[in-house]
Amino acid sequence: MKTRVVLHVLSMVSLIVSLFMVFPMIWSWMDGSPDLTAFILALGSGLLISGMLFLFSRVRRRDYEELGLREAFAVVTFSWVIASAVGALPYVLSGFVPSYTDAFFETVSGFTTTGASILTDVESGSRGLLFWRALTHWLGGMGIIVLSLAILPFLGVGGMELYKAEAPGPAPEKVTPRVQQTAVFLWGIYLLLTVLETVLLMFGGMDLFDALAHSFATIATGGFSTKNSSIAFFESPYIEWVITLFMFLSGVNFSLHFLALTGRLRGALEDEELRCYTWVVLAATALIAVFLILHKVGGFGYVLRQAAFHVVSIITTTGFVASNYELWPTVTKFTLLLLTALGACAGSTGGGIKVVRVLVMGRQIRAEVVGLLHPSAVIHTRVNGKVVSMRALSSIMAFFMLYIATMVCATLAAMAFDHPRLDVLTALSGVITSLSNVGPGLGSLGPVENFSWLPAGVKWIFSFCMLAGRLELFAVLLLFFPSTWGR
Amino acid sequence: MKTRVVLHVLSMVSLIVSLFMVFPMIWSWMDGSPDLTAFILALGSGLLISGMLFLFSRVRRRDYEELGLREAFAVVTFSWVIASAVGALPYVLSGFVPSYTDAFFETVSGFTTTGASILTDVESGSRGLLFWRALTHWLGGMGIIVLSLAILPFLGVGGMELYKAEAPGPAPEKVTPRVQQTAVFLWGIYLLLTVLETVLLMFGGMDLFDALAHSFATIATGGFSTKNSSIAFFESPYIEWVITLFMFLSGVNFSLHFLALTGRLRGALEDEELRCYTWVVLAATALIAVFLILHKVGGFGYVLRQAAFHVVSIITTTGFVASNYELWPTVTKFTLLLLTALGACAGSTGGGIKVVRVLVMGRQIRAEVVGLLHPSAVIHTRVNGKVVSMRALSSIMAFFMLYIATMVCATLAAMAFDHPRLDVLTALSGVITSLSNVGPGLGSLGPVENFSWLPAGVKWIFSFCMLAGRLELFAVLLLFFPSTWGR
Repeated sequence: MKTRVVLHVLSMVSLIVSLFMVFPMIWSWMDGSPDLTAFILALGSGLLISGMLFLFSRVRRRDYEELGLREAFAVVTFSWVIASAVGALPYVLSGFVPSYTDAFFETVSGFTTTGASILTDVESGSRGLLFWRALTHWLGGMGIIVLSLAILPFLGVGGMELYKAEAPGPAPEKVTPRVQQTAVFLWGIYLLLTVLETVLLMFGGMDLFDALAHSFATIATGGFSTKNSSIAFFESPYIEWVITLFMFLSGVNFSLHFLALTGRLRGALEDEELRCYTWVVLAATALIAVFLILHKVGGFGYVLRQAAFHVVSIITTTGFVASNYELWPTVTKFTLLLLTALGACAGSTGGGIKVVRVLVMGRQIRAEVVGLLHPSAVIHTRVNGKVVSMRALSSIMAFFMLYIATMVCATLAAMAFDHPRLDVLTALSGVITSLSNVGPGLGSLGPVENFSWLPAGVKWIFSFCMLAGRLELFAVLLLFFPSTWGR
Repeated sequence: MKTRVVLHVLSMVSLIVSLFMVFPMIWSWMDGSPDLTAFILALGSGLLISGMLFLFSRVRRRDYEELGLREAFAVVTFSWVIASAVGALPYVLSGFVPSYTDAFFETVSGFTTTGASILTDVESGSRGLLFWRALTHWLGGMGIIVLSLAILPFLGVGGMELYKAEAPGPAPEKVTPRVQQTAVFLWGIYLLLTVLETVLLMFGGMDLFDALAHSFATIATGGFSTKNSSIAFFESPYIEWVITLFMFLSGVNFSLHFLALTGRLRGALEDEELRCYTWVVLAATALIAVFLILHKVGGFGYVLRQAAFHVVSIITTTGFVASNYELWPTVTKFTLLLLTALGACAGSTGGGIKVVRVLVMGRQIRAEVVGLLHPSAVIHTRVNGKVVSMRALSSIMAFFMLYIATMVCATLAAMAFDHPRLDVLTALSGVITSLSNVGPGLGSLGPVENFSWLPAGVKWIFSFCMLAGRLELFAVLLLFFPSTWGR
């Protein structure tokens, strides 16, 4: 492991995160809030950390040319760790979140666009701090798009090479051959969606601050709100539908947005993952709406809106809440838990197992069953008309097994803290919601609850899950192998 | 599909099941119980059904030579269905279980060696009926051994060809090249274990009836007891340890028993699945014992016995109960739920995913992770020193995905009945315990509860799960494909 190169990149990440603190600073300055001092201190500390890392890691150009796979994986993982470590400073220095464990949890939750919160009273935070909180989502989302479309496919993680060599149109290298250029294009779309949603939310009566904060949280599929009762606060069907629409769009592969915006809408709409994602959203919404009507939760319009909002909020791994679905019938809660694990499309800002992986696995099961009757036949699994290579297939199935294994181990570890509120459903849903970067779970971690009551150890376990899930598990797991660190 | 050949085999299965009713008849006759009439009627009906199937399906020798894969899968699945349909008759005809749905559930639960019961008061049943109930386990267990060691490996189901071509010593065709001979050998071991346990239980104070019934339920890893409170009734540490030992042995691949009995004990002990199974039992027992001590459930001896008993009872998918573990700490209950899904060794009478599959999947995850750093290397997964073929690997992973998919769909379907007691944990654990053929679940289907309160529709879903799980999922799923039925 060429540690110096890794530290050099981390110094840049730390620098970028620190510099972005200027934006919340503006809100604190406008409000005359004492948090301005905290931000100045945090920015100073961030710059100091960056500087030290930079000095400690002075590299020559040649070092970069020798950057190998080991270093790439280390950079990916530790970028999120250092961003969270530095990003937690404003919370602690302002005294808003006294415990560093809590502040780190909140920041990991922000940068991984999870949206799980340890805050019991969000509204008591200053606009500066809440803007910073929303901004961690937005920055994290930018990182994820580049990661999932431009970095992970080339590292061969979890079958994401589907998007490198296998898939048609939306393959990133067809979007543009160079990582940097890809990033700029995708960020353009990301920015465009954010601006559009902000404008539409302001039409619905939100002020600029709330509109920006909620747009950041939507497009990044994060889920932090500036209100204790999340979206339910606004009591506006218009706002709920606007957010539903933009959550849905943010759960789509950003390569498809690029295709659509450059006049190849038809090609984008033919993408099998997009179609599957849309069908799942429609089916789950219908299922939940039917049971809400049977349980007389409300009229047709209300029930449809609530069902659609929460299905989209959960499948896209955003985690906004518009009503307390913990009170809904069991089958609807279980459906939401399944969507939590499923997640959105690959190449979006959403987390989870991803629709394309489940699609491939479903087809592979079918191929295996049919293969039983034709033992000598070779039956290929295809996506978008192209054969999925054995390597990608094996990678996808291994990802799924690893997801389940991580879920099981993390749940056992959390339960070992023996907290009376950590029953099976709470612990399991807490782990799944962290691994999939959704936010709310079920039981004592349900939509109107928060993560503040968890034992500190469990907060660290969940922080780990958020990071591991965000980085498609393999990148993080790799760092536990001694051979990664050897020569 | 050559339906006639299938029906012909089913007529034999029906005949065998009917003829075995003679044994419970003896108990009814000795007790002068009115259930004797019910058994005579049931036997008569069974013979009638067999006769009709036989006449309807008169086949020539040539038809058998044309027996193909389609027919083999149909025979495997419908054998269990017809056995249960006929085997349910004594319950209904005696009036002990008035509803046919309930009687069918109880018989499927018997033949699949699950042990889930709809009886609220087992002890009110006559000895004849309870002996029949235990006998369904024992017959089912015999069927499973032949199925898993002599039939499924050759049908290529779920990676079980591991035991055909890949594994060393314990491969069934090395035990003996012919199915019939294999069956006789394995049944000899099965009988030997049953006799041994019966004798040891009688030493512990059980009468012949209880000792036989519990031996049948142990060796088949079934779990039906003749007592309402299961093994807890006997209040005997000796009996609990004897049953623990024999449950453990019944969870081992029967090929290994054969090896051990023919002087190749060392070879048997080197089997990697056996080692993994043993380690899981030890680790889970230690984990549970520690938490029971922390929660002051009892002294060291008591706690160790209870932990070992329930770990072995659940991992072997027997499902005997010696204390109400629903009251134990969450982490222990979740551990038992995981063992429910895991199950015992392949080639045993136990169900579940099977230890060898989880072992292979764990190694495959490792291979994938290491492979990330060496993209051009081909890393093989091995069991017992031999490379697992890509085909077996893909089959094993598909089995796991299918297990999860079936679990999810069945849980959703059960929840759709909207029964107030079917909360997430109850429904999920009920499905897992049915799929893995264990018996007790958690929540309202916990160790001191029973399945009587479930809506009829859910009983049918769970019956389907028991059958599907018992037949390694693929055989049953295949019958849903129209192409299986075409020419």
